Amino acid sequence: MIRVENALNTVLKDIKTLGIEVVTLTDSLARVLACDIHSNSSVPAFGNSAMDGYALKSHDTRGASGKYPKVLEVIEDLRAGYTAKKALKAGQAIRIMTGALVPDGADSVVMVEETKKVSSVKCQVSSRMKKEFVRIFKEIKPGENIRKRGEDIKKGERIIQKGTLLRSAHIGILASLGIPKIKVTKKPRIAVLATGDEVIGVGKRLTPGKLYNSNTYALYSQIINCGAIPKNLGIAKDRPAELAAKIEKGLDCDMILTSGGVSVGDYDLVRDVLAKMGADIKFWKVAMRPGKPLAFGHIKGIPIFGLPGNPVSSMVSFEVFVLPVILKMLGLKMDFRNNEVEAIIEEDIAKKKGLRYFLRAHTCWDNGVYFARTTGPQGSGILKSMALANSLIILPEAEERIEKGKKVTVRFLD
Amino acid sequence: MIRVENALNTVLKDIKTLGIEVVTLTDSLARVLACDIHSNSSVPAFGNSAMDGYALKSHDTRGASGKYPKVLEVIEDLRAGYTAKKALKAGQAIRIMTGALVPDGADSVVMVEETKKVSSVKCQVSSRMKKEFVRIFKEIKPGENIRKRGEDIKKGERIIQKGTLLRSAHIGILASLGIPKIKVTKKPRIAVLATGDEVIGVGKRLTPGKLYNSNTYALYSQIINCGAIPKNLGIAKDRPAELAAKIEKGLDCDMILTSGGVSVGDYDLVRDVLAKMGADIKFWKVAMRPGKPLAFGHIKGIPIFGLPGNPVSSMVSFEVFVLPVILKMLGLKMDFRNNEVEAIIEEDIAKKKGLRYFLRAHTCWDNGVYFARTTGPQGSGILKSMALANSLIILPEAEERIEKGKKVTVRFLD
Repeated sequence: MIRVENALNTVLKDIKTLGIEVVTLTDSLARVLACDIHSNSSVPAFGNSAMDGYALKSHDTRGASGKYPKVLEVIEDLRAGYTAKKALKAGQAIRIMTGALVPDGADSVVMVEETKKVSSVKCQVSSRMKKEFVRIFKEIKPGENIRKRGEDIKKGERIIQKGTLLRSAHIGILASLGIPKIKVTKKPRIAVLATGDEVIGVGKRLTPGKLYNSNTYALYSQIINCGAIPKNLGIAKDRPAELAAKIEKGLDCDMILTSGGVSVGDYDLVRDVLAKMGADIKFWKVAMRPGKPLAFGHIKGIPIFGLPGNPVSSMVSFEVFVLPVILKMLGLKMDFRNNEVEAIIEEDIAKKKGLRYFLRAHTCWDNGVYFARTTGPQGSGILKSMALANSLIILPEAEERIEKGKKVTVRFLD
Repeated sequence: MIRVENALNTVLKDIKTLGIEVVTLTDSLARVLACDIHSNSSVPAFGNSAMDGYALKSHDTRGASGKYPKVLEVIEDLRAGYTAKKALKAGQAIRIMTGALVPDGADSVVMVEETKKVSSVKCQVSSRMKKEFVRIFKEIKPGENIRKRGEDIKKGERIIQKGTLLRSAHIGILASLGIPKIKVTKKPRIAVLATGDEVIGVGKRLTPGKLYNSNTYALYSQIINCGAIPKNLGIAKDRPAELAAKIEKGLDCDMILTSGGVSVGDYDLVRDVLAKMGADIKFWKVAMRPGKPLAFGHIKGIPIFGLPGNPVSSMVSFEVFVLPVILKMLGLKMDFRNNEVEAIIEEDIAKKKGLRYFLRAHTCWDNGVYFARTTGPQGSGILKSMALANSLIILPEAEERIEKGKKVTVRFLD
């Protein structure tokens, strides 16, 4: 029986990141970036106004106050998306909208709320042309209310790292650089095969001794949930030829998952069939609960997991072993410890020494501390407790008894 | 200027949950259940063995030990998926595989590891037929190693509540009940319109004063991310007729989002156009940063948000106001406080009194405590800091200065 860490190392050892495909920005959400992105331009590309107001020379506002405003001549009206026709000289201002290009000669913008329009000012109007003026009630610092060129992103800067899971803000950034398509890692295709004479398809009539194929549906969803593409191989009866034929159909995928047929029962044929098909099986049992009967190996170069048939064992084995494989195939840089916190356990737990336990739990934040409690009976057939769980309590191999009030490690699900 | 809570109450007041559609189980991941699901049968439907071993009467193992095993006659071999031909009598055992139906007369199962096959036993074989026997090395309790009928789910029990976000384990449960299709809430369709003469499409050539339309892409992704369907209305120039025509095209959706055009600039036409189209606008400004210029109202019965044009303001406004609307449309029971924790802030923050701040932050768990630090300059144009953030630090209106080391509320993103 192999320990969880050793099993995980064995599993991950030969997994390679998949190839690259090009997708449009709108298809890139939750995909994994396949190469670094460097900016091809500055963002903003041009210094622009952060406010509606007046672009001016900050020098011209020296000493301005509510009582003693400074008066500037308004020489132009500038909307976002356009460029000023004139350069600004001392004593002048250009009315400017948020996002508009800062005109030549201006070094700052005063918010419209700090100003007042005037139609004429005594002693200062010499020309017969109708001029427009504005009172400025505040001293403005150089650069004030200006978004500088390259303030968000400098040209040539590495803005998103290879291996990043693309979220909305990344996609916004890529759009702001005018990048319409990007390279992402291909989605792994994962084949799922349920096994066992007792398993029947959803929608069929249940007869004594049979049970519905829930594992395929749970695994199918888990696969989609972590960014891969499931392929349903159906249900194989406990007959070697049928098993071999169905496993064969999964060989065009990047990984195969079977559920059931890996424990010590005489009719657990998956092990024998895999051996006959030339699979190189690395382990059959992992020192954990649930999920002890768990096989892993390679068949014709493709990783294959023989997951346990119990619904909870199957789902927990997926979380602990299959998910990390998919993330490595995706090239996603991720550390599971980022999903782990410490919580105070709210009940006593007796456990078998030598096995790592993964208890289905609800963990909640209460007044500065996480508390974790199990979501009911932990039998490996009891899927209800998995549905109620938002986390797994992880109890180390060495422990035999964990007392209420102790700190435990909790890993959040999803 | 309306406070954040009041604005959110105003926004959510008239939002109704959308109608129902029927989807197959494989399409139900991340959908919201539209009605309670009660089980139509027990799971397991029949008592079955949790182990590979022997089904027996626990009474027959009384006093069994490694030194003094009890010997039982093996009368049948039972695989999962089949029913026993005979009922068990005292002194008999049936070899049973994991998942197989417990035979009549048996009340428990002994693990195969606690037994040993024997071909014949002295003094007990009277018949000339070849019989098979097994030694039992352990006393077995009634019910031991049996999964009871209804252990996971009782018939008639409410197993998943209306308003639940369906995850893999729910889908597994539904499959285990043989339910192939379920009713879920329809996905909200959300129209997105970028506005402004300065905004140009991704892929076009950037000229002075212009900027790429990043908001549509970021909003598009945010909409998909929370389970809704985006409709891209493109970019409207700052011309009333064009704006009105494009907004009109969003009226077949469940909500319309515009970005830009809601501040005090003369060319911020969205407000005027909405008023002329008969929109009932509830507020134009919210006491928050980023996101202060933020309009909300109804147009021909459809909720419409005028989001700010700055990329970060637009994204944060979405998180704070649009996301809760979508979740209410989906009928999802969710409390945002479940996403909020307390963290120690790692820097001093000066803020303007009267505004609620949402600072982009990276929050991490370190040695039993969350620490939060901002992800760089908080200018509302700086999308990079949003991409680096996994959370928002929420600072209350009343504060003017938050010192390093203080506890703050943090909301996790995604």
